[in-house]
Amino acid sequence: MLDFQAILQEIEIEIQPYLTQGKIASYIPELSMVEPTSFAMSLMTVDGQSYHVGAHHKRFSIQSISKLFTLTMAISLVDEKIWERIGKEPSGSPFNSLVQLEYENGIPRNPFINAGALVVTDVILNELKDAQKSVLNFIRTLAEKEDINFDFSVAKSEALTGFRNRAMADFMKSFGNLHHEPSRVLDAYFHHCSIAMSTQELCKAGMYLANRGVQPWLSEPILTQRQTKRMNALMLTCGTYDAVGEFAYRVGLPAKSGVGGGILACLPGNFSICVWSPRLSEKGNSVAGAKALELFTTKTKMSIF
Amino acid sequence: MLDFQAILQEIEIEIQPYLTQGKIASYIPELSMVEPTSFAMSLMTVDGQSYHVGAHHKRFSIQSISKLFTLTMAISLVDEKIWERIGKEPSGSPFNSLVQLEYENGIPRNPFINAGALVVTDVILNELKDAQKSVLNFIRTLAEKEDINFDFSVAKSEALTGFRNRAMADFMKSFGNLHHEPSRVLDAYFHHCSIAMSTQELCKAGMYLANRGVQPWLSEPILTQRQTKRMNALMLTCGTYDAVGEFAYRVGLPAKSGVGGGILACLPGNFSICVWSPRLSEKGNSVAGAKALELFTTKTKMSIF
Amino acid sequence: MLDFQAILQEIEIEIQPYLTQGKIASYIPELSMVEPTSFAMSLMTVDGQSYHVGAHHKRFSIQSISKLFTLTMAISLVDEKIWERIGKEPSGSPFNSLVQLEYENGIPRNPFINAGALVVTDVILNELKDAQKSVLNFIRTLAEKEDINFDFSVAKSEALTGFRNRAMADFMKSFGNLHHEPSRVLDAYFHHCSIAMSTQELCKAGMYLANRGVQPWLSEPILTQRQTKRMNALMLTCGTYDAVGEFAYRVGLPAKSGVGGGILACLPGNFSICVWSPRLSEKGNSVAGAKALELFTTKTKMSIF
Amino acid sequence: MLDFQAILQEIEIEIQPYLTQGKIASYIPELSMVEPTSFAMSLMTVDGQSYHVGAHHKRFSIQSISKLFTLTMAISLVDEKIWERIGKEPSGSPFNSLVQLEYENGIPRNPFINAGALVVTDVILNELKDAQKSVLNFIRTLAEKEDINFDFSVAKSEALTGFRNRAMADFMKSFGNLHHEPSRVLDAYFHHCSIAMSTQELCKAGMYLANRGVQPWLSEPILTQRQTKRMNALMLTCGTYDAVGEFAYRVGLPAKSGVGGGILACLPGNFSICVWSPRLSEKGNSVAGAKALELFTTKTKMSIF
Repeated sequence: MLDFQAILQEIEIEIQPYLTQGKIASYIPELSMVEPTSFAMSLMTVDGQSYHVGAHHKRFSIQSISKLFTLTMAISLVDEKIWERIGKEPSGSPFNSLVQLEYENGIPRNPFINAGALVVTDVILNELKDAQKSVLNFIRTLAEKEDINFDFSVAKSEALTGFRNRAMADFMKSFGNLHHEPSRVLDAYFHHCSIAMSTQELCKAGMYLANRGVQPWLSEPILTQRQTKRMNALMLTCGTYDAVGEFAYRVGLPAKSGVGGGILACLPGNFSICVWSPRLSEKGNSVAGAKALELFTTKTKMSIF
Repeated sequence: MLDFQAILQEIEIEIQPYLTQGKIASYIPELSMVEPTSFAMSLMTVDGQSYHVGAHHKRFSIQSISKLFTLTMAISLVDEKIWERIGKEPSGSPFNSLVQLEYENGIPRNPFINAGALVVTDVILNELKDAQKSVLNFIRTLAEKEDINFDFSVAKSEALTGFRNRAMADFMKSFGNLHHEPSRVLDAYFHHCSIAMSTQELCKAGMYLANRGVQPWLSEPILTQRQTKRMNALMLTCGTYDAVGEFAYRVGLPAKSGVGGGILACLPGNFSICVWSPRLSEKGNSVAGAKALELFTTKTKMSIF
Repeated sequence: MLDFQAILQEIEIEIQPYLTQGKIASYIPELSMVEPTSFAMSLMTVDGQSYHVGAHHKRFSIQSISKLFTLTMAISLVDEKIWERIGKEPSGSPFNSLVQLEYENGIPRNPFINAGALVVTDVILNELKDAQKSVLNFIRTLAEKEDINFDFSVAKSEALTGFRNRAMADFMKSFGNLHHEPSRVLDAYFHHCSIAMSTQELCKAGMYLANRGVQPWLSEPILTQRQTKRMNALMLTCGTYDAVGEFAYRVGLPAKSGVGGGILACLPGNFSICVWSPRLSEKGNSVAGAKALELFTTKTKMSIF
Repeated sequence: MLDFQAILQEIEIEIQPYLTQGKIASYIPELSMVEPTSFAMSLMTVDGQSYHVGAHHKRFSIQSISKLFTLTMAISLVDEKIWERIGKEPSGSPFNSLVQLEYENGIPRNPFINAGALVVTDVILNELKDAQKSVLNFIRTLAEKEDINFDFSVAKSEALTGFRNRAMADFMKSFGNLHHEPSRVLDAYFHHCSIAMSTQELCKAGMYLANRGVQPWLSEPILTQRQTKRMNALMLTCGTYDAVGEFAYRVGLPAKSGVGGGILACLPGNFSICVWSPRLSEKGNSVAGAKALELFTTKTKMSIF
């Protein structure tokens, strides 16, 4: 039997040299105001045990990890119909590239690049009156934490500077692949990205991904078993930007990363795991976060492969 | 001595089979409301003689031909400094592609593709309070016609549907290559494109391009001789979208075309010539217009080559 | 306890409608001479049980499945050093595209696209005198079958028509990323692809991928446990051409496909599985093969996710 | 009346600071063995006057300037049919890119990029038994100089190192756009590029381009007037690699450059002009050569624009 707490503590020590590698996202001032060597890691097993090290109560901007939750909502709303407007393939390009979008007539390669998440948001807007609030409430329910909230200053900064995201939204609109006004979709999207959570909260919120679609403390399943399997497949092939191959190779877990420095991963049937450290690699993933997960799967010999 | 009027009349007859080829631009309703087999051709020599056939008084939407006049204004305002923000090379891509813009970090390939014209408009906005009105007044002066005007319904339609142009503007803003708000630049740009003129008016307005920078009826030159030479070089290498090679090969004149079906061309030192017919080739140039110019340079053996 | 034989037999029945979908590879005459509705499926568990349906003794051209075995040899020869010359990311492009190769200076995106396999072959040529024979012997050993052989007429046809592969080899040579003469590398590569095996043989040969690097009947491990995990990660993110996302989504097993219609997959710690049916999807994977694997993971609820 | 000799001498003085800018082509040893600050310029008017400055007797490797002569031969052999296999548009990409070739299914953008010249050579091979010798004889006739010859060591070096050109040839063969064996086409092509000529010889050889298709000392025209006009159009839009816009803007003459440092240009109806200086810009054109031509058209106010 593995002593998870001891393993996390080992990792917390071994990770030290990695905490000074990489660069904090600084395209908006709010993201750069965080302590650069922060580190936290939380693990929750499907039988309900939790383990933590580091600043696991400290909230950070979940950014692209929100794409997991918006996609989950969209799939629970329209299931497979979502794939009429988004692909399922890794992009082989930076997360915010417009090139592929042009070659592929406004159909984003997958739901985890920005363009794809904008279409996901547009789908939710089709189904629900208030996409922004609905997503927040959904996350609060997943994590059983009512005070999780948007960081409005982050959302506002994104709106003021996010010209590339706006370009993407307008571009997809020109191909007919957004049904709502780009500005409305962007507004909801920027708010989703701005949500602030701790590793402890994210780890708990993502339990259904490890647990065949079920949050044990909720009466209704979040996703069917089949939908959950597929969500994990998407995370593995598309969840870590243009580094999915390297991430699968080194870590071997389905995961979704964000430029706030968080990574949420899971081993289906076993555990949900979340790590946070704000310095990013060139490809936009937390350097120490990816290393910590690699150490974890190496030490425990637990991975999908 | 060539009898230009007779040659234009020959062309008017020979062009008939071409008037039914190609498709009228229909992305906004206003452009598709024109009589599809319309044809007009106007010639003005540097010694002041004018010749016309067809509906040469009929005004049509000049669209991208406006890029000639805005570039002329920008060059007269900031001269060579404009090339710090725009290239001078043919694009090898459709006029509204974002791919090259991404590979080249937001620097448009040349001032005659849409992205380039947006930067030109941004430059004019730096220098003049009211870019929109200034450009209109400039064109009125060039053509000596005070009732030339915007077609506000065209401009409004462009604004409502021009998501790809908006995407371009936002994209360049994200690279720092627009100084003003994208919406303001777009608004001026859409108005420039909406200006309605006849071949007779355009032909006269473009006389300076054939006449070393000078409109004979104005006291001040529009461009220096050197600037005029360079403007002609840009027209030849970049003026007819992704068909510049074919156009130079068949016609052999510096020219700028628009999706309204107009083409304004010149033979430096000799004449300004304008043709209009609304059906377009796949690459966006007037089919009968290009053919009429080819017939003209073949019959007269007058071209730059 | 699952009755694997019964499940395979169910699949054999349910797969019938899929056997007429897709197109047989016909770029060389030899590949098109196979019975188009052929089907075979073989399963081997890590505890040594085997199950088969269909033409499981019938040999077919393994084609790109050979890339698995050459990469295994190269990794056992030079381990991580191979990544200095090949990437680990999915390509987001067709398997034989030269575009990405140009943008990335002759470094192939991963070892499972053609360009990558040519570099792998070049690496083996560095280490072993006779790359061609060594690979054949390696596969014979893995499958415990001495009469597995090249199909020389397939290899010759590939050599005669494989101009795109030659272009790739020359292109990488121009970037300095092939050390041997392109013609020599291509010759070995075409021979590797021409090897003929049955699903029964391939399934057995690939057992080490499911079994932490070990063929139970051999004294020495083929790969370390860590290398095996990483090989599986590569298969999942790069093993099925530009359809890896879709394949992971629907099937959820690490796999490598070939244009001969074979797919070799595994569930680490559980089983090796091989399916064959020659008609291909547009992306180059066996239509019925992929469907049969999807049925298998759906019926057994056994996948990595 | 302009004093051309005086103008050339002025240019020879003013060009001095430019002779040390740029880099000599060094991808094969032979090209780098030339004196780096060499300079020569030759002018020949259509009425038969010649003017020279610098090392105008010194022969250098004409390289891509040979593309002019092979295209001329091909057009005189098959006229417009050549455009079934080659485009006429500027590439917007480096001269040796394979990207566009892939997007456009093996049809090179124009006859002056390497891929296009390989197709031109393939066309000549269709029509003439010995493409290599025929082209040499053609050039000897154009220049009235029987001792012009291949530089066999240059041709051999190109063959040994020209993997990118080989990749292009194989790639086009894979699309069916080469009819002969790639190795045979390449061999002829490398020999054409290796021909050594002086500015005096090139200037004379290119007279027909300035003189409506006629070498005054030959009984038969080389091209028709219409073909000559079109050749000039191609030179202007495609003759100076990915710098055609800049070249037209600054110089304003149809021209073809080579990496040996030569540029052959003309003003139709007026003169043929050739300049040589081996240091190249990043885009592959002679730095001092382009500047000298710019000085010439500025001083004489003679250009096509």
